[in-house]
Amino acid sequence: MFNVAIIGASGYTGLELVKILLNHKKFNITYIANSTGEVLINELHPCLESVISTNVEKANAKEIAACASLAFLALPHKTSMGFAKELISLGVKVVDLSADYRLELDTYEKHYCEHEDKANLPQSVYGLPEYYKNDIQNASLVANPGCYPTASLLALLPFIPYIDENSPVFIDAKSGVSGAGKKLSESTHFCNINENIFAYNPFKHRHMPEIEEKVRLLENKELAINFVPHLINVTRGMLVSVYATLKDDVDVEKILEDAYKNSPFVRVRKEPVNIKATAGTNFCDIFVAKNKKALFINSSIDNLLRGASSQAVCNANLMCGFDENEGIPILAYVP
Amino acid sequence: MFNVAIIGASGYTGLELVKILLNHKKFNITYIANSTGEVLINELHPCLESVISTNVEKANAKEIAACASLAFLALPHKTSMGFAKELISLGVKVVDLSADYRLELDTYEKHYCEHEDKANLPQSVYGLPEYYKNDIQNASLVANPGCYPTASLLALLPFIPYIDENSPVFIDAKSGVSGAGKKLSESTHFCNINENIFAYNPFKHRHMPEIEEKVRLLENKELAINFVPHLINVTRGMLVSVYATLKDDVDVEKILEDAYKNSPFVRVRKEPVNIKATAGTNFCDIFVAKNKKALFINSSIDNLLRGASSQAVCNANLMCGFDENEGIPILAYVP
Amino acid sequence: MFNVAIIGASGYTGLELVKILLNHKKFNITYIANSTGEVLINELHPCLESVISTNVEKANAKEIAACASLAFLALPHKTSMGFAKELISLGVKVVDLSADYRLELDTYEKHYCEHEDKANLPQSVYGLPEYYKNDIQNASLVANPGCYPTASLLALLPFIPYIDENSPVFIDAKSGVSGAGKKLSESTHFCNINENIFAYNPFKHRHMPEIEEKVRLLENKELAINFVPHLINVTRGMLVSVYATLKDDVDVEKILEDAYKNSPFVRVRKEPVNIKATAGTNFCDIFVAKNKKALFINSSIDNLLRGASSQAVCNANLMCGFDENEGIPILAYVP
Amino acid sequence: MFNVAIIGASGYTGLELVKILLNHKKFNITYIANSTGEVLINELHPCLESVISTNVEKANAKEIAACASLAFLALPHKTSMGFAKELISLGVKVVDLSADYRLELDTYEKHYCEHEDKANLPQSVYGLPEYYKNDIQNASLVANPGCYPTASLLALLPFIPYIDENSPVFIDAKSGVSGAGKKLSESTHFCNINENIFAYNPFKHRHMPEIEEKVRLLENKELAINFVPHLINVTRGMLVSVYATLKDDVDVEKILEDAYKNSPFVRVRKEPVNIKATAGTNFCDIFVAKNKKALFINSSIDNLLRGASSQAVCNANLMCGFDENEGIPILAYVP
Repeated sequence: MFNVAIIGASGYTGLELVKILLNHKKFNITYIANSTGEVLINELHPCLESVISTNVEKANAKEIAACASLAFLALPHKTSMGFAKELISLGVKVVDLSADYRLELDTYEKHYCEHEDKANLPQSVYGLPEYYKNDIQNASLVANPGCYPTASLLALLPFIPYIDENSPVFIDAKSGVSGAGKKLSESTHFCNINENIFAYNPFKHRHMPEIEEKVRLLENKELAINFVPHLINVTRGMLVSVYATLKDDVDVEKILEDAYKNSPFVRVRKEPVNIKATAGTNFCDIFVAKNKKALFINSSIDNLLRGASSQAVCNANLMCGFDENEGIPILAYVP
Repeated sequence: MFNVAIIGASGYTGLELVKILLNHKKFNITYIANSTGEVLINELHPCLESVISTNVEKANAKEIAACASLAFLALPHKTSMGFAKELISLGVKVVDLSADYRLELDTYEKHYCEHEDKANLPQSVYGLPEYYKNDIQNASLVANPGCYPTASLLALLPFIPYIDENSPVFIDAKSGVSGAGKKLSESTHFCNINENIFAYNPFKHRHMPEIEEKVRLLENKELAINFVPHLINVTRGMLVSVYATLKDDVDVEKILEDAYKNSPFVRVRKEPVNIKATAGTNFCDIFVAKNKKALFINSSIDNLLRGASSQAVCNANLMCGFDENEGIPILAYVP
Repeated sequence: MFNVAIIGASGYTGLELVKILLNHKKFNITYIANSTGEVLINELHPCLESVISTNVEKANAKEIAACASLAFLALPHKTSMGFAKELISLGVKVVDLSADYRLELDTYEKHYCEHEDKANLPQSVYGLPEYYKNDIQNASLVANPGCYPTASLLALLPFIPYIDENSPVFIDAKSGVSGAGKKLSESTHFCNINENIFAYNPFKHRHMPEIEEKVRLLENKELAINFVPHLINVTRGMLVSVYATLKDDVDVEKILEDAYKNSPFVRVRKEPVNIKATAGTNFCDIFVAKNKKALFINSSIDNLLRGASSQAVCNANLMCGFDENEGIPILAYVP
Repeated sequence: MFNVAIIGASGYTGLELVKILLNHKKFNITYIANSTGEVLINELHPCLESVISTNVEKANAKEIAACASLAFLALPHKTSMGFAKELISLGVKVVDLSADYRLELDTYEKHYCEHEDKANLPQSVYGLPEYYKNDIQNASLVANPGCYPTASLLALLPFIPYIDENSPVFIDAKSGVSGAGKKLSESTHFCNINENIFAYNPFKHRHMPEIEEKVRLLENKELAINFVPHLINVTRGMLVSVYATLKDDVDVEKILEDAYKNSPFVRVRKEPVNIKATAGTNFCDIFVAKNKKALFINSSIDNLLRGASSQAVCNANLMCGFDENEGIPILAYVP
């Protein structure tokens, strides 16, 4: 057994981490924290009553290092890098679910804020297992991808060599409301989003440069990504539609099949994907179709699991030498 | 007062016609029919109890001609042209909500079936008031546009001169479930669409050639439209996102403002549009944004009203010499 | 035309008042206010864009009196009685949508706070038209009933003489989220109420004494009402189930039919009622069934309309000598 | 390992059985069947793609007996008793999820149809583990309770001695749409139930006699249960409100605590229960409150799990001598 800590247990991704790790045979939760402490985890999340009743501590890096070898940070960006820096210096492996280590320094500082852990940033590995598996296995600091970039990159990357870079690539992405977190806002008021759907921050979301950067680093191609996120009236789940222009008449189904034939958590589908088939799981379902030069790639993930917590545990599995599949949820909530 | 008939009162668009016309000061409903008759309209639609209690007849063209000067046909395609032909020959004006008169002969027969009223087809006018107002005013047969084409064309048409026709145009369209009608199907079972959203018939929906044809006829431009409809878990409402490539650096907000400055039912919005602001109304809300050459045009309509019944009444207003606004719903269901 | 003011235009009931009065042939909106002013009504409610663009004022009683003969107060309790007192003294008729004038002094002060307008309280009339029509017609101050009491009393009152007062009466009431208003709270966060339903404040809600008091005043009977409200995952609508014990074997359908045979806004139904058939209207649908001594009365209203704004306009109609039906919405949002 | 069969794999409860048993350490699925066969389980339920790919057989009792020691029957009533009879004769233990063995002969034949397995009926045990644990441990045929009776009885039974049998007991029960199964119907069409909620079959549902009979058998008390089920717009989950009259002033919280202090799957709550805290689990959450003689007991279960499939596995655990908790889901789908 490998002792692990969950920092940031109040939010949805923290809760999902607790739930996954409770069923994990190789990870043992020895420390749970949030920003205040002095509460039980089943008080923070009443659904955990009769399941787990651990104290939630006020997060403290030294205490973590004393009882855990790996920490999951489910914290807001900026807060996260403060903890990560200290934990790394104390020899604790870190899976960071925030944005703090996802981007190269320039991109990060342009879109977020000044980076406060420039020393560790270059060593961090982007935790998309299908593309960075070897690096993750050797990493002590993994930056868990954003939910939108996860679904977008898994759809887009196999097709990069075939896409005409002179035409814009459009990503129309739809996220369930849990992606906005527990905090109260106009957008998450039931009366505003129920029976509704709308785009927000078109072409301006911070996940856009994350997608562009990874395309450039992995495929050595400068691609203009035009990203339009939407909020939809579902609690969890994400649907991404990538629209691009093909350079040539290629067999898109075969390209997709070949790309993921060895990937346990990507399912290539023969029909357009839907949200419910992946909600509750770490799967990314992908479908592709073309119409002459027009390309449509359609992916679905659970935004809180593949888009955050189960992918984080997948990364931790790899970092600790376990099987990628260990304890990862694969049974959808259907119906 | 002008006497009108509603043929096809069992479905959602038939119900909406009844509701609009009940409040209309110049149209008087003298005949309501469906395929069986022998029922009251408040039995077909219990929400109309204590509101209206008219007999629903088994549809008969001669009876219609005897009591009405204009008929709304809310019938399935193919059935509709049979009635329309007979009604026209009897001197009754027709607003046809089906697809039967929307397309040129070749396009229709390729995507639907053999046309059975080739004589009247050339005289029919496409009932998109913003673009065909004069023709509608002089028409005796108006083909009411499909819901997807209405929202797509109103978004797309102002930008046709500025769009690079060498890049594909993508339309990612999301429709509420009422668009699928009252019939029972796997897709409309609550457990399958609740907390869900999915694309269907990507690049293959019959509204795609309707959009292409109208672009060609109105703007004299062959544009490859790549249309991907989605079903979303709302009852009514439609959101359309058009993604295209600009040829030049133009002022897209101004183009949109100019296009609709005299249109009472198009609202140009400063923020991305949403479904609830138009549900219950005949409005089409439109928002536009660009990112270098990448163009995003975003429109919202009520699929049953602007996408069917209220646009039909708008067309009837014009055909009868009334004000376009007469009796047209403008108050959204918000909240 | 009769000039009217709407005070409290920011909330849902204020919006509904604007929408109803815009279509009202005898009332003319001359003044709209909220607590801050300096905004347009279409900025407060973007769905009103292109519909109405009136200035919203900071509420001022003297200004109201200068331009309106009747004011609708859609304000929080306590705030409301301050305004009402001043308006009454200036000769303006008032329909108060808050709780401030609904209860007798003792009951009010026990469940709310000290009453600050003891002078006018005794003259106020409880605005449930089916039971207080004559009084409303002669009133200058009408207290619009709460949403739960409206649906509960309309269901319960016809049966009071037949109910065994030695057995408890239970009311299981379910309200859509709009009943909780626009303010942000844990309960109205989409992720907490979507796919959910729960009771709150069982036996402790302030609408319970309102129901008890009106039963006592109208029927001269002390009945212990046990009221359990629920929040349900719909935006608008309310379903109330009254469970009581009959003293004798009576014809409950006939009792219900007789009670409302002359009431234009109560529809007696042959099947259990549902929310959608009344949403968008001022109707209260009621169904009754019994099983030996067990009585089940089931009512449905739109919580924002019959439970607030359309009932308020109905009361204003009566206060001003107009027909009760004038401008009152009767067309449901179905589908 | 104990080999088990699932008969009736096409429906929701069959799917849930597959999902639970896949994670069960002591049961091994050796046979899956539906009424037609010739399909893979991942074709029947595409969410199971990449998870399990077993052949689904056309159900055959002899084949089952050849490969399994226990069978779960997720079949319609009447069909089920045919299979059960044959399986029992072949020495296979049976957990029957239908109604066929839940009731005494007279009650069954009055509310369902003629019973075709009168020989085994008297030996069947009602599978509510909190009340029949010893019998279940010795049974070879267990009748899994209905979803409504499970939630109702767990709420009601602790209070039977304290309830005044001269006053009616009312049960206001709300079920998610998955309770109606996969079949298409008006009620399950999204447009009819979305944003809606309604009672059906008030006082006439077949789960009413099931509740009455178990109260009589367990507590030796004839209690008139007045049961009003509702359909609500959630996919899964059930909320039950029991309203009854107390004979004396008793400590209802203590009665509830005492009743379930040793029950791993009943959680006594301090606040009214909600659906989401139990969805995805075998828990039944219960809350109680009183107002003088008026009693309100409020329970929540997942209708497909505690109301069907996870309770069935719980029963199978007991029948096979395993721990009641083995493989039973306890992690809610929250958020």
